[in-house]
Amino acid sequence: MESSGSKKRAGGASEEQDMLIKKTKMTDKELDEMKRSHPNQPILKEGGNYIIEGLDSDKLVTITFSMSHESGSLAEALDIFKRHKVNLEHIESRSSHRSDEYEFIIEINTEAPTVGKALEELKDKSSYFQIISRNYKNNAAAGVVPWYPQKIADLDKFADQILSYGSELDADHPGFTDAEYRRRRKEFADIAYNYKHGTPIPRVEYSKEDVETWGKVYRRLTELYPTHACKEHNRAFPLLIEHCGYREDNVPQLQDISDFLKSCTGFTLRPVAGLLSSRDFLAGLAFRVFHSTQYIRHPSRPFYTPEPDVCHEVLGHVPLLADPSFARFSQEIGLASLGAPDEYVEKLATCYWFTVEFGLCRQEGELKAYGAGLLSSFGELEYCLSDKPEVREFMPEKTGVQKYPITEYQPVYYVADSFDDAKDKMINFAATIPRPFSVRYDPYTQQVITLDTRPQVEELIRDINSEMKVLLDAINKFR
Amino acid sequence: MESSGSKKRAGGASEEQDMLIKKTKMTDKELDEMKRSHPNQPILKEGGNYIIEGLDSDKLVTITFSMSHESGSLAEALDIFKRHKVNLEHIESRSSHRSDEYEFIIEINTEAPTVGKALEELKDKSSYFQIISRNYKNNAAAGVVPWYPQKIADLDKFADQILSYGSELDADHPGFTDAEYRRRRKEFADIAYNYKHGTPIPRVEYSKEDVETWGKVYRRLTELYPTHACKEHNRAFPLLIEHCGYREDNVPQLQDISDFLKSCTGFTLRPVAGLLSSRDFLAGLAFRVFHSTQYIRHPSRPFYTPEPDVCHEVLGHVPLLADPSFARFSQEIGLASLGAPDEYVEKLATCYWFTVEFGLCRQEGELKAYGAGLLSSFGELEYCLSDKPEVREFMPEKTGVQKYPITEYQPVYYVADSFDDAKDKMINFAATIPRPFSVRYDPYTQQVITLDTRPQVEELIRDINSEMKVLLDAINKFR
Amino acid sequence: MESSGSKKRAGGASEEQDMLIKKTKMTDKELDEMKRSHPNQPILKEGGNYIIEGLDSDKLVTITFSMSHESGSLAEALDIFKRHKVNLEHIESRSSHRSDEYEFIIEINTEAPTVGKALEELKDKSSYFQIISRNYKNNAAAGVVPWYPQKIADLDKFADQILSYGSELDADHPGFTDAEYRRRRKEFADIAYNYKHGTPIPRVEYSKEDVETWGKVYRRLTELYPTHACKEHNRAFPLLIEHCGYREDNVPQLQDISDFLKSCTGFTLRPVAGLLSSRDFLAGLAFRVFHSTQYIRHPSRPFYTPEPDVCHEVLGHVPLLADPSFARFSQEIGLASLGAPDEYVEKLATCYWFTVEFGLCRQEGELKAYGAGLLSSFGELEYCLSDKPEVREFMPEKTGVQKYPITEYQPVYYVADSFDDAKDKMINFAATIPRPFSVRYDPYTQQVITLDTRPQVEELIRDINSEMKVLLDAINKFR
Amino acid sequence: MESSGSKKRAGGASEEQDMLIKKTKMTDKELDEMKRSHPNQPILKEGGNYIIEGLDSDKLVTITFSMSHESGSLAEALDIFKRHKVNLEHIESRSSHRSDEYEFIIEINTEAPTVGKALEELKDKSSYFQIISRNYKNNAAAGVVPWYPQKIADLDKFADQILSYGSELDADHPGFTDAEYRRRRKEFADIAYNYKHGTPIPRVEYSKEDVETWGKVYRRLTELYPTHACKEHNRAFPLLIEHCGYREDNVPQLQDISDFLKSCTGFTLRPVAGLLSSRDFLAGLAFRVFHSTQYIRHPSRPFYTPEPDVCHEVLGHVPLLADPSFARFSQEIGLASLGAPDEYVEKLATCYWFTVEFGLCRQEGELKAYGAGLLSSFGELEYCLSDKPEVREFMPEKTGVQKYPITEYQPVYYVADSFDDAKDKMINFAATIPRPFSVRYDPYTQQVITLDTRPQVEELIRDINSEMKVLLDAINKFR
Repeated sequence: MESSGSKKRAGGASEEQDMLIKKTKMTDKELDEMKRSHPNQPILKEGGNYIIEGLDSDKLVTITFSMSHESGSLAEALDIFKRHKVNLEHIESRSSHRSDEYEFIIEINTEAPTVGKALEELKDKSSYFQIISRNYKNNAAAGVVPWYPQKIADLDKFADQILSYGSELDADHPGFTDAEYRRRRKEFADIAYNYKHGTPIPRVEYSKEDVETWGKVYRRLTELYPTHACKEHNRAFPLLIEHCGYREDNVPQLQDISDFLKSCTGFTLRPVAGLLSSRDFLAGLAFRVFHSTQYIRHPSRPFYTPEPDVCHEVLGHVPLLADPSFARFSQEIGLASLGAPDEYVEKLATCYWFTVEFGLCRQEGELKAYGAGLLSSFGELEYCLSDKPEVREFMPEKTGVQKYPITEYQPVYYVADSFDDAKDKMINFAATIPRPFSVRYDPYTQQVITLDTRPQVEELIRDINSEMKVLLDAINKFR
Repeated sequence: MESSGSKKRAGGASEEQDMLIKKTKMTDKELDEMKRSHPNQPILKEGGNYIIEGLDSDKLVTITFSMSHESGSLAEALDIFKRHKVNLEHIESRSSHRSDEYEFIIEINTEAPTVGKALEELKDKSSYFQIISRNYKNNAAAGVVPWYPQKIADLDKFADQILSYGSELDADHPGFTDAEYRRRRKEFADIAYNYKHGTPIPRVEYSKEDVETWGKVYRRLTELYPTHACKEHNRAFPLLIEHCGYREDNVPQLQDISDFLKSCTGFTLRPVAGLLSSRDFLAGLAFRVFHSTQYIRHPSRPFYTPEPDVCHEVLGHVPLLADPSFARFSQEIGLASLGAPDEYVEKLATCYWFTVEFGLCRQEGELKAYGAGLLSSFGELEYCLSDKPEVREFMPEKTGVQKYPITEYQPVYYVADSFDDAKDKMINFAATIPRPFSVRYDPYTQQVITLDTRPQVEELIRDINSEMKVLLDAINKFR
Repeated sequence: MESSGSKKRAGGASEEQDMLIKKTKMTDKELDEMKRSHPNQPILKEGGNYIIEGLDSDKLVTITFSMSHESGSLAEALDIFKRHKVNLEHIESRSSHRSDEYEFIIEINTEAPTVGKALEELKDKSSYFQIISRNYKNNAAAGVVPWYPQKIADLDKFADQILSYGSELDADHPGFTDAEYRRRRKEFADIAYNYKHGTPIPRVEYSKEDVETWGKVYRRLTELYPTHACKEHNRAFPLLIEHCGYREDNVPQLQDISDFLKSCTGFTLRPVAGLLSSRDFLAGLAFRVFHSTQYIRHPSRPFYTPEPDVCHEVLGHVPLLADPSFARFSQEIGLASLGAPDEYVEKLATCYWFTVEFGLCRQEGELKAYGAGLLSSFGELEYCLSDKPEVREFMPEKTGVQKYPITEYQPVYYVADSFDDAKDKMINFAATIPRPFSVRYDPYTQQVITLDTRPQVEELIRDINSEMKVLLDAINKFR
Repeated sequence: MESSGSKKRAGGASEEQDMLIKKTKMTDKELDEMKRSHPNQPILKEGGNYIIEGLDSDKLVTITFSMSHESGSLAEALDIFKRHKVNLEHIESRSSHRSDEYEFIIEINTEAPTVGKALEELKDKSSYFQIISRNYKNNAAAGVVPWYPQKIADLDKFADQILSYGSELDADHPGFTDAEYRRRRKEFADIAYNYKHGTPIPRVEYSKEDVETWGKVYRRLTELYPTHACKEHNRAFPLLIEHCGYREDNVPQLQDISDFLKSCTGFTLRPVAGLLSSRDFLAGLAFRVFHSTQYIRHPSRPFYTPEPDVCHEVLGHVPLLADPSFARFSQEIGLASLGAPDEYVEKLATCYWFTVEFGLCRQEGELKAYGAGLLSSFGELEYCLSDKPEVREFMPEKTGVQKYPITEYQPVYYVADSFDDAKDKMINFAATIPRPFSVRYDPYTQQVITLDTRPQVEELIRDINSEMKVLLDAINKFR
């Protein structure tokens, strides 16, 4: 059984990895191709300097602007769009963090041919003006930044931006010919497709066969964890048993896990209907949101899956997400990706691959695994700590350009001294990304703040000052 | 009309103030007296050094502890309670921020006469041990700290710790003889009493009379705001009109306001069934939760109310809670209060009185009002900026011991240079409060963290370090 | 004896205070008047926007500039001055902290009538340009900042900017008719007048009478210190006895004290020939240099002096300058004064008066004296801690505008919670001073750095970052 | 000439490197051997836990201690030594940074056989107790830390701890048979041997031949600098020409250079009579003191030197020491070495080798040299930027254990992203060094502060706080 498992795994490894690669590294080219084969075509429009191309979602062009003379400013802005016959999908006002003015966030309908001219006119009248758009590539010269979610509810906006959907399995998928399995997969996909931020993740009942599959995986892996998994994983596991029903005979429910993670690190899970682009997937991490599958692999091959499934998420990813340092590290990758150019998103996705998916760490002089791809595959979990693979220090600028094979176990792993150290390196790397702002997350409002003005920097300094005062007090309260 | 309004207000002022004082300064003595006149009596028990006295809520004795030898530690702890025949109401385990151990949080049933002995035994075996309890006064020598909510859901635990309830109006209340008004008041109180964290605040339909009352107050105050209110208030007001339905003919709904505040500063509203003690009310602020009434004053006297009502909350408090600096300041008062001795809670409540309720600030060389008690009373709003009252600098250690009359307008107001400055002073003051820990709020997990060990301090330093790196990047991204 | 001492002191107090006031508060008006009665008259010249008026020292117009095209820039600048026939007194080049360019510091001879035009031309060609000048008042519109020393050796430049010199005693001075005393005073003045930074302060031999005078003062004061002086004073005193020869029968030598202070806090003493303006005196503190008299009061009245003498400096000031927190506080006043407008220098001098000269502090619930004016006058030292005077909290913006009588003991004293707290307040106050830069002191190069560019701010952040790393390490090394 | 120069250099390179290696890496074993062959033998003594072995310098055992009951504490301590018949070489008292107590620093004469017992008795009575000693190896278990200079004047204490002296040249030295050259070398050595901190470095007159040698080296190297040296070197060079007399026909004087460096970064030069141990040499850097040779290579072979000479120091090291970031980096290596175990000093010396001596850096996409060993050898300067050697990222923990050949050009160079980055890595590495304190340098008092108590940490936090306030102000003063 072990040997056959290992054997299958040998093949499985590559396929699973292939899947994961796609998941975190689906290029925009692939995304574009996918879109071409889908019905709701974007319509190209030109006008002024801007080329606004509609995606299947109209909501992904967002303009943030302020106007210097307060009174009537919004009305004036609205008038510009009206004159140019541009429909606005959404309009919102708020206090600006950048000045004493108000700030307006507008999402536009890009079907009008005159959008570009309207934007140029608006920009001229604005004291602050920033466009983020899915269609940034043709507009980089005009200062358009790749679209990213600005508040946590914006994650709803790319729930439909997925590669494959539900029952669309490849011909070599173990469940390809299993109609009932495909029906179930569609059910899971529908849950995710319709999921909205702030609502509970529907509980699902797994079949007897599903639970048996889970049980086999669970048993094998939990034997290896004490010796192979990092201490953070082993520390969280008993709590997951206690709080979330981790048991050989029970597949844990995402909502229970999400609630538990929320209490540990603020991370929450969000069901995903299929593969997201790297850009979208990483963006979720910026909000401490982890996009998770909910379905389980096909029962015919319990030790093999060509794609992430609930076993991978729940046994591989979740325990680490309960660790505060790892959570911070993961969020930093996400924050670094927001508004970054494509080549940097690719580097970050590669960093993600060599850390969150396949990372090793050094603990009390020994190597241990913390990557979910390792912690959910007992074959590679044993292999990665053997003397066969090469081990290098994690350095984002180098790790981010490392090539990797997808049809076999990794020949190279990267090792982190600690999650705190990896986080610091990630922040340093983020500072090298060319984008017109620095990024901060406000956990109170669950919004991303782009820092590009003096008042915001002053606020940051004040926040640090306050924390320094707390620190001084805390030094006195040591036991 | 103006004059009669002013006249009523002269009397009204005192009563409203009296009310507000009670609200924020109800002493434990008053609370005890109230409890004596109520059915579910606490039962005194003794044992060892601890005197655990049941309140009407059994849940307000909480023990946090770790044990140094990991395996079996919880079982051992449970055995102690079992041997001493102490029932546990709730038990919870989590990763400790203080060490590599687990930490257990236990809420005990204090009816057993042997509680004290069980606690002593547990303490001996623990590497970390902390009790917080409502019954801290008899146990201070044993290191028991006044109970405080540790996570946001704990605010549910004192929803029933209120002075008066619903229809229980005093004989001189304008609605005392109005049975229908009292019935409505009970409805509001029931909403609050049954409210649980995480659920939406029920929307209420205000009667035609109610809306007229609101309209009168709204019209008079909005005339004064441009000249008398601080700029933060005036800045938020148009957004409240846009987002929350602030209109002369509409009483805004608490849930709409709560959602808006959440997006501005992370503050949320929570309905309250009656008067909370100062300690409980301030504790809410630590979580950026503001306890708000939902009912409206009696229509017979639209410019008078002997207690805070929805006009006071919505026109006085809410606009300021939308300001980030004010939000931070308010939270600092709350954090300072957690686990503080009674005399310090009283000082903090007095600071709250002279800032959040009756504070002035200096803006571009002129005094402006930011206190909700001023911004919801057009009589005192005019008076406070006249040359009649005395104005002093806000200094927590002095302001916190200032006496104030409750039957007339304030003779002394305190002025803040800025909310940031007031916040810094509050943090400095907090450091002088004798309690065995420093306090930090984790907005990701919505938990209070008590800092009393080295690893927590290191984590704080690492967080500051990360923010310094972001700062360095941000300096380079100025426009 | 005690009563007669007190009686004399009653008169003496006022005169001594008068003296000290002059010392730290000599207005520019007074300075101007003094200059009018002195031979070497300034010559007014005009040209362009600048009115450069020579003082008796030609060296107090300093221009710092960079030019954007590196090669030949200095030659080009020199050519401008040559064409306009402006002689340069001094020229210096260095690496700029503000850019990759070089920075030039030029001191000009202001006799040429065309100076203004030369400066305008130079400014046009410069990427960075800043003038500091003694003659700032007529040139404020052109951005000229009051002259200040930029490096420690610049303190030599105002050694001759003194009000009275040596033997020029007023008619009511106790030594007015004592020719030998006046001769000795001139000797002391000559030492100071000729003193250059980096050289040892000449040791002086005090006469038998001088030592007796010192001994009387020493004995009376040291009786009061244990109960009346702050703990920092009492802590330093035994070390001064050990290291610097503080004894009833020995007047300590300034160089010995200076060496001791250097090893404690980096402060050094510098002899002063007479009264400096407030601006110059405070500027010394920015470099941790304290200008000290060396002569002793007239032996005819040992408990009276109309001006600061070595008893005042050595018993009053020196012990506090050995305390690290006090040293930092003193330096902050100095740094705040650099380049500040006159009215702010006056506020800072008043703050200095109410702290360094007449300050009280609160220690373990009791008031103690730390001001040198108190610690060197046993009459006022007893009075200041009695219930007669009023005591207020030190707040720079308020304290700095407090009037004070000069013919009697102070009716009002200001109390500091701690020197650290006073320092923080001073830094906050400094941020409100209108000047075009922020100021930092570099103790490695003993230079003042004016922060007004992004690269300097980044360097400051990096320095803070490094210190945070040291902090994190230090937290782990507690005993 | 070029070819023969190159040829000689091929051999010369190895010898020069060998020399430099010895300079920075002379092991304690080598030191011990050297001492064995020298007259003044240490005398071994035992007592209690301490084995105090006298070196040829008696002054290198230093005890710092406080006693908890203030009065009489020093007397009591002195009595201990008296009873045990231990002579004290030096005794000093000061205010402690660690508590309100005084701190005493004692240097003992270790000839007495009862030293160990005296120390044990003293330790028992002390509230703080720390020994640093040259003889730490036999006393590690007793907590003895390797001796290090605590204040800048302590650098005088190892001026005589050198390997070879003056005219003691090896048989293959180009000047071995030149009696006059050896006489001159002795003169230089005598200058250094007798040098005391705080005095000027004697100016020396170089012979016509010396100047010609210098001129040849100067001309060849200055041709390469524009293309091969890092920008910091090229930026400083014109200033050195202007301020310090760098010219083909003039050998600059150390004191002029020292003065210039002091004004740039606070670094100063100190003449050295021969080779110091790595520990001593690095310790100098902690004080921003660079130990420099003053003699020049033998005129017979101008492009070869088997040891560092004034050309190497003045052309290789000095320009970089004028750069603030490099100065900070150099100082961090020094601070890391203080009190570190031997194996860490060796790692630091190796880091020094691969940075300060042979470091490369990346500037605008190109590699440049900043190591003095490169910048003073035109052969290796060309080679190091060719594609022949291997280039790796500087990482202290890895670089510090890299082996290197000493008879040829380096096969591996390490490259730094920036000096700031290298400094941060060095600070991180320093935190991994096992020693009982963290280290900070106080440039005001020119003392090393060992941080191991709470009050010191609080002071550090307060300092950081003050700098944060300055930062906030500076943000507002950007041009």
